[in-house]
Amino acid sequence: MVVVVEKNATKQELENIIEALHKHGFDVHRSTGVNQTVLGAIGVQPDFDTNTIRVLPGVAEVHRITEQYKLASRSFKRDNTVIRVGKNVIFGDEEVVVIAGPCSVESEDQMFTLAESLSALGAVMMRGGAFKPRTSPYSFQGLGEKGLRIMRNACDAFGLKMVTEIMDVSQIETIMQYTDVLQIGARNMQNYTLLREVGRIDKPVLLKRGLSATTEELLMSAEYILSGGNEGVILWERGIRTFEKSTRNTMDLSAIPVIHQKSHLPIIADPSHAVGIRDKVIPMARAAVAAGADGIMVEVHPDPDNAMSDGGQSLFPEQFKQLMQEIKIIIHAIGRKLSGPVKKKGIHSIEN
Amino acid sequence: MVVVVEKNATKQELENIIEALHKHGFDVHRSTGVNQTVLGAIGVQPDFDTNTIRVLPGVAEVHRITEQYKLASRSFKRDNTVIRVGKNVIFGDEEVVVIAGPCSVESEDQMFTLAESLSALGAVMMRGGAFKPRTSPYSFQGLGEKGLRIMRNACDAFGLKMVTEIMDVSQIETIMQYTDVLQIGARNMQNYTLLREVGRIDKPVLLKRGLSATTEELLMSAEYILSGGNEGVILWERGIRTFEKSTRNTMDLSAIPVIHQKSHLPIIADPSHAVGIRDKVIPMARAAVAAGADGIMVEVHPDPDNAMSDGGQSLFPEQFKQLMQEIKIIIHAIGRKLSGPVKKKGIHSIEN
Amino acid sequence: MVVVVEKNATKQELENIIEALHKHGFDVHRSTGVNQTVLGAIGVQPDFDTNTIRVLPGVAEVHRITEQYKLASRSFKRDNTVIRVGKNVIFGDEEVVVIAGPCSVESEDQMFTLAESLSALGAVMMRGGAFKPRTSPYSFQGLGEKGLRIMRNACDAFGLKMVTEIMDVSQIETIMQYTDVLQIGARNMQNYTLLREVGRIDKPVLLKRGLSATTEELLMSAEYILSGGNEGVILWERGIRTFEKSTRNTMDLSAIPVIHQKSHLPIIADPSHAVGIRDKVIPMARAAVAAGADGIMVEVHPDPDNAMSDGGQSLFPEQFKQLMQEIKIIIHAIGRKLSGPVKKKGIHSIEN
Amino acid sequence: MVVVVEKNATKQELENIIEALHKHGFDVHRSTGVNQTVLGAIGVQPDFDTNTIRVLPGVAEVHRITEQYKLASRSFKRDNTVIRVGKNVIFGDEEVVVIAGPCSVESEDQMFTLAESLSALGAVMMRGGAFKPRTSPYSFQGLGEKGLRIMRNACDAFGLKMVTEIMDVSQIETIMQYTDVLQIGARNMQNYTLLREVGRIDKPVLLKRGLSATTEELLMSAEYILSGGNEGVILWERGIRTFEKSTRNTMDLSAIPVIHQKSHLPIIADPSHAVGIRDKVIPMARAAVAAGADGIMVEVHPDPDNAMSDGGQSLFPEQFKQLMQEIKIIIHAIGRKLSGPVKKKGIHSIEN
Repeated sequence: MVVVVEKNATKQELENIIEALHKHGFDVHRSTGVNQTVLGAIGVQPDFDTNTIRVLPGVAEVHRITEQYKLASRSFKRDNTVIRVGKNVIFGDEEVVVIAGPCSVESEDQMFTLAESLSALGAVMMRGGAFKPRTSPYSFQGLGEKGLRIMRNACDAFGLKMVTEIMDVSQIETIMQYTDVLQIGARNMQNYTLLREVGRIDKPVLLKRGLSATTEELLMSAEYILSGGNEGVILWERGIRTFEKSTRNTMDLSAIPVIHQKSHLPIIADPSHAVGIRDKVIPMARAAVAAGADGIMVEVHPDPDNAMSDGGQSLFPEQFKQLMQEIKIIIHAIGRKLSGPVKKKGIHSIEN
Repeated sequence: MVVVVEKNATKQELENIIEALHKHGFDVHRSTGVNQTVLGAIGVQPDFDTNTIRVLPGVAEVHRITEQYKLASRSFKRDNTVIRVGKNVIFGDEEVVVIAGPCSVESEDQMFTLAESLSALGAVMMRGGAFKPRTSPYSFQGLGEKGLRIMRNACDAFGLKMVTEIMDVSQIETIMQYTDVLQIGARNMQNYTLLREVGRIDKPVLLKRGLSATTEELLMSAEYILSGGNEGVILWERGIRTFEKSTRNTMDLSAIPVIHQKSHLPIIADPSHAVGIRDKVIPMARAAVAAGADGIMVEVHPDPDNAMSDGGQSLFPEQFKQLMQEIKIIIHAIGRKLSGPVKKKGIHSIEN
Repeated sequence: MVVVVEKNATKQELENIIEALHKHGFDVHRSTGVNQTVLGAIGVQPDFDTNTIRVLPGVAEVHRITEQYKLASRSFKRDNTVIRVGKNVIFGDEEVVVIAGPCSVESEDQMFTLAESLSALGAVMMRGGAFKPRTSPYSFQGLGEKGLRIMRNACDAFGLKMVTEIMDVSQIETIMQYTDVLQIGARNMQNYTLLREVGRIDKPVLLKRGLSATTEELLMSAEYILSGGNEGVILWERGIRTFEKSTRNTMDLSAIPVIHQKSHLPIIADPSHAVGIRDKVIPMARAAVAAGADGIMVEVHPDPDNAMSDGGQSLFPEQFKQLMQEIKIIIHAIGRKLSGPVKKKGIHSIEN
Repeated sequence: MVVVVEKNATKQELENIIEALHKHGFDVHRSTGVNQTVLGAIGVQPDFDTNTIRVLPGVAEVHRITEQYKLASRSFKRDNTVIRVGKNVIFGDEEVVVIAGPCSVESEDQMFTLAESLSALGAVMMRGGAFKPRTSPYSFQGLGEKGLRIMRNACDAFGLKMVTEIMDVSQIETIMQYTDVLQIGARNMQNYTLLREVGRIDKPVLLKRGLSATTEELLMSAEYILSGGNEGVILWERGIRTFEKSTRNTMDLSAIPVIHQKSHLPIIADPSHAVGIRDKVIPMARAAVAAGADGIMVEVHPDPDNAMSDGGQSLFPEQFKQLMQEIKIIIHAIGRKLSGPVKKKGIHSIEN
């Protein structure tokens, strides 16, 4: 913590500030210049409330200088965390993982039809919600456990891994019986009770960035999970709220190199939720891969016009086919490969 | 829903749009002008995903025209909802309620000392957290049930009502044994599982506006609680995230007249969380009362410099005394009265 | 400037950082703790680009610690700047100034009718635009010099001072012949060429906060004017862009105590532009006065339904009368007085 | 414009609303449903103030349905506007233009050294400011006309086209003697006097998106220039202000497909200003090209550590070389080509 002292502070005020810092356990180093005095307060208190010092008479400014997260930081662990789900799904290495599926699980027919085409086109993991967080209490809230069962069967039938959302601690036991990966939604990014609980399980967690969360806050939430012992955290950029109204949110692609610098955790990008309308999904998926994303998550539905939720941003299966073709070219161009069974890699798959 | 058709849309595209609207159960009214065609789609589907129509060829824009909330709206219920907690605490009528207390319950000594002075100075309800949502997993997380017990005793000893935060469905049973009013924090404003559960209980709920939630979203979250049968919802403005860095958040005081127009529910204002630093709390408390707030919540601590959390924004007891004097003058000036035992009202109390 | 060194930085990297700081003219003080090293770089370079250091290998973070403005700061000048316009208009002292008028000057009839009623109700300065910055090139752009002449005559006829907007350096000479105070609009807050020019004139300037400018940026723009020699700068809070859609902008009332702490310059509040719709103007005017504003600016029109611009946020004259009654009570309650001729002050005027 | 009538509106209120619409020149179409009435107000008044209707008794909501811009819209002109600057610089067609250069023109030596290497590496246009808009009045404000002369000579010596910023109408005559393309900066995006003037000249204009401007507002500002007769408008995405602090701004890459859909004007992307720190520039340049940008603008300096402005975000020449190699691969992968002399195109240049 750095404390900037006011130009006109009295000697007594300065002494009181130093005493307060000592009382809170900090070592204090003083830098005195012609115009100002700066105090370096050295100590290991990641969550110290800097306002405690900021309000003291004579204090001009206080800056926190320690990252609040430890286990999630690149300085704690230099090498990328590589997370494997089965043989073919690898996050955090040279692979780029494609996850696709509907917003909500609606029926057996929907899920099997879709799983078949997604698998054929190169997706390796399926998404789909059985418990849905909806803004309105009067909306479709998901099929619950029945939905989980349908999805598990569809995934198994076509060799796909499964990821689905958990909304509350009470759902853990049920969901754990079905899924390969748990997802924490944007509105729960700071539901600390939930983060703590998934920190105790042994399945990977996809942690979605909150609607107007910073990358620092996303890493702090990852820290909750990591500190419980679960090292399988995959971060998930899905757009942030801005004043731009042409898209549902604004995709923050610079978060990808930023996270890669600050943390060893993998990060995927979700153009469907970021732009919210299907005709912008493909260019943004290309851009996300070009920026270095470790995976892409997109919403696809066999019949988007009749989807029970998020139909407007869901791709038609033929659009997903085009997306796969276009991102494969970019994946190859930047020297990475598509995550999946060994044969389906690189530029050769473009012709397929 | 209103659908604006593109200027260059073909006749076929227009027909397809109308057919899609019919299929989703809407009555369609067509307005054709020289330059454009507008379709009015009339029907009662508060959560219809407008993007389903927006992506159709020939559609220029889609506007939702129905409020998504019903029970929370002024058009559903013309008269103010008045919520009483005991005899002396009245939200939603001419009274202005003052709630005060520390961020966290820390000790018996702290709570009894504080309860005594708050009560003497005119507060009628005490706040204080026993379960704390903290950004860092390494921070003080609250005293848990022990904290609830201390707080209940302190409140009872000095005739104060009690409000405390619930973070997760699993805490309901415990907290319900102690508190008069439950509070839902900013990070849980869209924790729908929790909202649903508190909708089934019979104690009032203070619902805090999320960090970058709109007033519409706040009312949608209130709708979840109301739709469960709990009519005792008190809204809580506490500042929103903006680019201004001099204050922790930006207090949105226009939310007060906005909510009063849109909804029948009472709304209180929390200058402590809004500005985040104690020396701006008093002027903002005055302003909130002048704008029409039904109550004020402020953080007060017997020894802010040693508080375990939020010390920087907590008032010293003597500052709280000054705040009470200043807001009483404003309360009287705008023709309202301080919520509390009958004698302590209006301008005469300034001299007390 | 404070430079936080990475935990894993090499000795060579540390030396390079220190050398770079020396080369840019800084004195360097080193604080070495168990976990990290912090460098205090002391020097007087308000506009040094901190990214120059931030990109060096081994640097974790860089914090600027000097305010970038000087002349505008409270530490440069302890006492409030008091700006007088004639005998009766005083900004920055115990008075609260009421400025009112239409968005645009439209006709002689409009301005004389309005000036008469505003003056009778207690306004002391009239606003009105002759050169209008409009989002669309096809909109009404103002009456130009003819508008200035009409407005000057209307103000003179009823003893009001005049304030009007300047959009470009080329208009200075013309506008200076007519107005008492110049106003710089939100979109020109960082038009440095214009700021520099009005810094050389000898009339007060009302400087409007930009649509998403911080208070620091507002003070930096004031610095441009002050550094040219013009000390008559009045700051103007008018709402900032946020995600809340019920109001045109979000009024940032905490900017008032913030500016009063950081700077010696007066600040007025403009509820009309902040909320954008007339029925929220009165409560927000009350709140602004309660928060400590040195003045209130509101839009009033004799016939808002037929105004050529901003009709929706303009008050009817009878609403302005009500506003004056309500704010006078608050002005008195907080111990200030209405700016104006000696007799019209304090609570006694409520009965008038 | 669509007017939603309140559920409880009286018949008289409804009639008054319709009368007001007629008085303002609208045709009115009424849609009456079980729960609500919607009025379609058809007419051609792009800048009508919808608040004029919004404040009438009985009005629930008002939605504007006409785009406010005409000449800039894709519905006005189906085909892309292609802007040529000399033979080799083509905006708006299959080419991707690379513009590079320093923030400020500092010296002859700097500009000639840089022009030589930029030209050799594939840039076709050089950027550099001679008149600088600086937040602080005490900062380096640019070399003025001397800077323009140096830059023109350096560009001519190495076959580069030139783009430089104009800050004020008074600079037009001087700058027009030297530059090929004018640039309007972010802070001047809504300086309507300036937009109007550059609308009358016959050189292309690079129009930078304002710091928190929406794409709609950017197109409205383009409309000002187009309406003056200048058809050579190139839009410029450079990041918007968000709460994310790891980067200077947040690059809004979805603006690229959004603008391509709404407008026929070309759009370039500027990763240097968007991220503000050099080590994130290359991945974001790749992403911008993948998203479909018609050009890339980056800051490069022969000695960034000693640059007089923006050194931290300026690339070293060797980094620019790497950037060119990486984006050429992406340009080829998506089927476009690098703008420049005929030989230097496509994938073959990777080996050069």
